[in-house]
Amino acid sequence: MNTLINDIEVIKTDQTTINNVDFDNLQFGHVFSDHMLECDYKDGKWHAPKVVPYGPITLDPSAKIFHYGQSIFEGMKAYKDEDGNILLFRPLDNFKRLNISAKRLAIPELPEAYFMEGLKALLKVDSDWIPKKEGCSLYIRPFIFATGKGFHASPADEYKFLISTAPSGAYFAGKLKVLIEEKYSRSANGGVGFAKAGGNYAGQFYPTQLAIEKGYQQVIWTDDNTHEFIEEAGAMNIFIRIKDTLITAPISDRILDGITRKSIIELAKAEGLNVEVKKITVSEVVAAAKDGSLKEMFGAGTAAVISPIAGFGYKDEDFELPELENTYAGFLKKRITDIQTNKCEDPFGWRYKV
Amino acid sequence: MNTLINDIEVIKTDQTTINNVDFDNLQFGHVFSDHMLECDYKDGKWHAPKVVPYGPITLDPSAKIFHYGQSIFEGMKAYKDEDGNILLFRPLDNFKRLNISAKRLAIPELPEAYFMEGLKALLKVDSDWIPKKEGCSLYIRPFIFATGKGFHASPADEYKFLISTAPSGAYFAGKLKVLIEEKYSRSANGGVGFAKAGGNYAGQFYPTQLAIEKGYQQVIWTDDNTHEFIEEAGAMNIFIRIKDTLITAPISDRILDGITRKSIIELAKAEGLNVEVKKITVSEVVAAAKDGSLKEMFGAGTAAVISPIAGFGYKDEDFELPELENTYAGFLKKRITDIQTNKCEDPFGWRYKV
Repeated sequence: MNTLINDIEVIKTDQTTINNVDFDNLQFGHVFSDHMLECDYKDGKWHAPKVVPYGPITLDPSAKIFHYGQSIFEGMKAYKDEDGNILLFRPLDNFKRLNISAKRLAIPELPEAYFMEGLKALLKVDSDWIPKKEGCSLYIRPFIFATGKGFHASPADEYKFLISTAPSGAYFAGKLKVLIEEKYSRSANGGVGFAKAGGNYAGQFYPTQLAIEKGYQQVIWTDDNTHEFIEEAGAMNIFIRIKDTLITAPISDRILDGITRKSIIELAKAEGLNVEVKKITVSEVVAAAKDGSLKEMFGAGTAAVISPIAGFGYKDEDFELPELENTYAGFLKKRITDIQTNKCEDPFGWRYKV
Repeated sequence: MNTLINDIEVIKTDQTTINNVDFDNLQFGHVFSDHMLECDYKDGKWHAPKVVPYGPITLDPSAKIFHYGQSIFEGMKAYKDEDGNILLFRPLDNFKRLNISAKRLAIPELPEAYFMEGLKALLKVDSDWIPKKEGCSLYIRPFIFATGKGFHASPADEYKFLISTAPSGAYFAGKLKVLIEEKYSRSANGGVGFAKAGGNYAGQFYPTQLAIEKGYQQVIWTDDNTHEFIEEAGAMNIFIRIKDTLITAPISDRILDGITRKSIIELAKAEGLNVEVKKITVSEVVAAAKDGSLKEMFGAGTAAVISPIAGFGYKDEDFELPELENTYAGFLKKRITDIQTNKCEDPFGWRYKV
């Protein structure tokens, strides 16, 4: 029977799969909740979204997603506090960024209410899927792709917006070693690097595989012209602590405006840490590693939260980072996680109760 | 009933749609033939392809094609000569390039026999779909995309390879005006610009829309660092004739190794034309337009064949190309089309009889 939640039509599944899920041993993004939000663009407009049972998508073989890569996505997380409240973190920023990505990929922008009310209705329906275990969360994946048909290389006339959720554990397992890239690139000036576009990820897989074969888990991308400036890690923005200064690259048309990144900058400043948003070169990082002033490196992103980097490779040389007792990474991760999970005050107004 | 053609299993449709098609008024890539080739990668290998009725593809919402842009494709054309022979043009080059794209996008490479024998079986089954009208052809779209599931940003473990075909007319209608890009970019050094990856196309749509709003049909991409070097047009490589020299940019990791492009270079050389493969700057082209030494510009690609450019825009200035009686574009287009359609000898061995 159909119901309405937040004015969103809900068609419930009659077969939950929640009892098959081992909530004590969650991988990242591997099992999917019972429902999804579905919303179609056709005849020149987005039509009202519905919560429907999670299930297969059927497309024509000429659907443009298969040919021309028109796809964008977001990553978010939902938590449950001790009182059972469902909590999000800066969800409007994800919505706004989705539309920034949409514009660059020539995808029609989505109305805010379809995103926000649709998301809230979905979370209410699948609220039992939100893990309670520390370090776990319900990973939320809003995404849009081109369903319109035809082999002409031009924007599609039809699209699908979906939100699917997955109860998830940590994104990275074990110590994180990264390779600073000298040959391959993630994005171009004037390109789509700032957008969460599918194609940005596929292009990273092969260089990342090469890095994995050498014993690293991730690549740190550098600018495509000189390979001298640190950019981002594809799934994370990068922070570098030299002495007591925390440095991260400014956003640009090549670098994603990460929500965790900007929250860390604000949080660190509020906590009185010295934060500099500036271009930083590989040479500076290597020199700091050599003279001992390089104290920490960490990645920051929704999926990875704050992931400390244990060491990095560059031009066939390996550099280990010191094992400090009190790290900025640890301090900031606890602060941001406490805010996200309602374990402390939220002076920034980031927490969002569904 | 299932049959075997070229050792490929064929499952025929019992409902042809060929009688709905107006073969005298074909658009490009708009109607699709009765059958398609389908081939799946799972459990670590590609499984034998089948010719099956053209029909919908069903995917899990977490299929990686929707999220991480792992998709590549090729473009080819089939012709029928007066004796009813089915003809392809350098098909092995498309196969090889598909695997070059596959490697860069971390997609498992495809066995040659699955591509070639599968394609031939498909064309034999749908041979009635090959248009006979001059300027028309059966456009062939081989493509591979990630079907494996999960929200982790890593290569999929399952893929689908399809070949679908579409009886098609001309790609461009009317006079072609192009805009030389000064802000946006198509590809990065060390990126995926040389691959036929879906994401390369989506990134071009928005800048192309801006160009269309200004009265152009296509963008000529320049390098992302200086915007001074002419690269390609996204759907075509670019040739520029200054006086009696035909110039095109060398291929690189940013520029597609176009099969029409390299055929034109060989053909023009064999015909005694002066051809130079070298970097050419926007300043050179603008200066040549101003002093009258710029005789022709044209795009070259499988879909567009050879498309003469009537004029270009750069920095708010418009340049018209002269209307010559005997053009290299016209001469080379006739030569290459005659070879493709078996109207003349083929000294290069490019024509391929199915």
